Amino acid sequence: MTNLNVPGLGTFDDIAAYVDGVGNAARIAARALARADTAAKNAALTEMAEAIRRDEARLLAANAEDVNAARAARKDAAFVDRLTLTPTAIAAMADGLREIAALPDPVGEISDVKYRPSGIQVGMMRVPLGVIAIIYESRPNVTADAAALCLKSGNATILRGGSEALRSNQAIAACVHKGLRSAGLPESAVQVIATSDRAAVGHLIADEKHIDVIVPRGGKGLIERISRDAKVPVIKHLDGVCHVYIDARANLDQAMRIADNAKTQRYGTCNTMETLLVHADIATSVLPPLADIYERKGVELRGCARSRAIVSSMKTATEDDWYAEYLAPILAVRVVDSVDDAIDHIARYGSQHTDAIVTDDHVNAMRFLREVDSSSVLVNASTRFADGFEYGLGAEIGISTNKLHARGPVGLEGLTSRKWIVLGTGQIRT
Amino acid sequence: MTNLNVPGLGTFDDIAAYVDGVGNAARIAARALARADTAAKNAALTEMAEAIRRDEARLLAANAEDVNAARAARKDAAFVDRLTLTPTAIAAMADGLREIAALPDPVGEISDVKYRPSGIQVGMMRVPLGVIAIIYESRPNVTADAAALCLKSGNATILRGGSEALRSNQAIAACVHKGLRSAGLPESAVQVIATSDRAAVGHLIADEKHIDVIVPRGGKGLIERISRDAKVPVIKHLDGVCHVYIDARANLDQAMRIADNAKTQRYGTCNTMETLLVHADIATSVLPPLADIYERKGVELRGCARSRAIVSSMKTATEDDWYAEYLAPILAVRVVDSVDDAIDHIARYGSQHTDAIVTDDHVNAMRFLREVDSSSVLVNASTRFADGFEYGLGAEIGISTNKLHARGPVGLEGLTSRKWIVLGTGQIRT
Repeated sequence: MTNLNVPGLGTFDDIAAYVDGVGNAARIAARALARADTAAKNAALTEMAEAIRRDEARLLAANAEDVNAARAARKDAAFVDRLTLTPTAIAAMADGLREIAALPDPVGEISDVKYRPSGIQVGMMRVPLGVIAIIYESRPNVTADAAALCLKSGNATILRGGSEALRSNQAIAACVHKGLRSAGLPESAVQVIATSDRAAVGHLIADEKHIDVIVPRGGKGLIERISRDAKVPVIKHLDGVCHVYIDARANLDQAMRIADNAKTQRYGTCNTMETLLVHADIATSVLPPLADIYERKGVELRGCARSRAIVSSMKTATEDDWYAEYLAPILAVRVVDSVDDAIDHIARYGSQHTDAIVTDDHVNAMRFLREVDSSSVLVNASTRFADGFEYGLGAEIGISTNKLHARGPVGLEGLTSRKWIVLGTGQIRT
Repeated sequence: MTNLNVPGLGTFDDIAAYVDGVGNAARIAARALARADTAAKNAALTEMAEAIRRDEARLLAANAEDVNAARAARKDAAFVDRLTLTPTAIAAMADGLREIAALPDPVGEISDVKYRPSGIQVGMMRVPLGVIAIIYESRPNVTADAAALCLKSGNATILRGGSEALRSNQAIAACVHKGLRSAGLPESAVQVIATSDRAAVGHLIADEKHIDVIVPRGGKGLIERISRDAKVPVIKHLDGVCHVYIDARANLDQAMRIADNAKTQRYGTCNTMETLLVHADIATSVLPPLADIYERKGVELRGCARSRAIVSSMKTATEDDWYAEYLAPILAVRVVDSVDDAIDHIARYGSQHTDAIVTDDHVNAMRFLREVDSSSVLVNASTRFADGFEYGLGAEIGISTNKLHARGPVGLEGLTSRKWIVLGTGQIRT
């Protein structure tokens, strides 16, 4: 590994020194970004979008090299699919940048300013986190998307994509740099790690001096590995074992629609329902017609004994099924005796991601909202709504299952924090 | 190490199993606390205060045993002072509990509820973090204070105080348990680790399954050790290298008062000024009279060459002085040429804790507020105001120098986070 270049800082011939150099350059750029005004950030984002459109041919060519190499390395079809850029994907990437330019700038927002008895005014100002490292897998569009969200929220970014996408990512980064340059912002505000050596990840996640937060995006294996080894705080997404609980006093029509949609609208997403809980009083009304819907759509049902007494075609659920995130057309089904039992089941087996109740009972709705400790709790709506766009964030960097800082969909605000500001007229403490 | 008891869970004869049992009991209690209503939490806090008053003699007796043992172990006077409970300190502890009872309950607060085009209403609800472990040193009053803040914010608490204070802490915990019991809340909502074996700390900070956040309170050595080894997120306070910058257009009278107060009101606090920056245009007016004030109060000045040219009695500041958190009557002094130089100095040498500008120049005040990346940034007020009580939080668990989650003084809100709530009328995602 030789001659890794960090613009403005020179050339490095070992990975640790290189990553340290990248971190140092990011830390310097972060100060310029934190004070960059909204117009400059938006101009950079708009010019990035234009550069991506203009450079379509170059992006496709770089991507074709990555795709050919992946095919030669016998990567599977799903992998190649995630890696492949098309003209449509490139246009979507450019549009995404323009959408982020159009979002309100969270940085500098001042709130809650109040006078204190001492005469000082105390309030809060929203500020960037500083330097964010994004570690992702093979999707090259993350390069533009993550860089744009971090830039708009005033953060410097270090991007470490999958090694198989390195040429695509560098071609996209060239467009990002054109945008930054045109707006007078430092190119080192967005850096792509220029080596496929895996040691770089180890150095990044340990670099507390230069990096404020790590955002891993990808499969569970990647996220667990990074969370286990990181010294830098991680905004992470682990399991999505999501529940829909159909209460005794549910509107039957709503219950059917929501249970159907939460499971079958998309099978592979983190906010897809994995376990259906049904109150015993309504189970005989709701389970047979629901089972028909699921059967038509090819969803395998795995039920508790009481569910199977109602729908005999269900397979038997084992203890493992209650913990399972299938991400597939499989659904665990359990009959419960009360909203308490439903809440207990979710506390025991759930992943604190997204859970919904269907009910017309006000008391049970309010109890479920308060007592279910998940990043999204819904009443009479599909779990599939747990999403940054649906919530109105405009864009999301991911969904956090952390309990500190941001929970659930993380948009621009989740990439900032708030500092205290004090406005005085010469006050001293006595 | 034998027979460590966790009420309701049995007796353990090894530290790892014991800490796991404590964590498990805390996790169960956390669910009860999260749904406890404000009246129950306040009743518990009020009864704790009364029990502490009633049990004064028992607390003093238990504390005397700890103090005698510490003296026998030749602990220094400052240590014994921190360890010692007096009737006044006990009364203050009880008053502190009543003050926390009187604060608004942050749990369940619903905010920002808006309709989305899909027809769902999306908002946020403030919720407890879950289980908080507080690791502290010899001050027994932290036992009551930390337990109360965690309880009011709906969290279960595991307390691990200094081994030298174990008898005092257990006596205080008995009062805490009386309060919990009288309000119908589980005693395991607040648990004191019943062993002085240091291995317990190692197990606690690694217990991601049961503990949501660690709050270390004490010296820098303790905090660094815990931060380095913890697997659980840590809300921590590291250095407080705080600056006051006197700008060219400062009001001279305000500048003198603030620079005096920020350094001399208390020397040992984390928000005490450690470096004074003075604009060159005002240095000859401000430094000589300030030097007189500091000299009268016995503050040693260590200046840059330009400061020393104005006040020849200053010692010479070395590079190390700019990084120093003296916590003592010593002050580093530097003359700078602009607000940019002041901001650069703070970015380079500061600790992102608390920094102030004294100026009548609006542009410089606004730039300093925005560009200084510290948890508290003040204009025309003493750095000593960076404090939960002064900010109106009512109480504080500490001051965070983290960038994620809470920055600066952490009160009840900092011990909570916000989850997303969705109120629908049967909506599904299309």
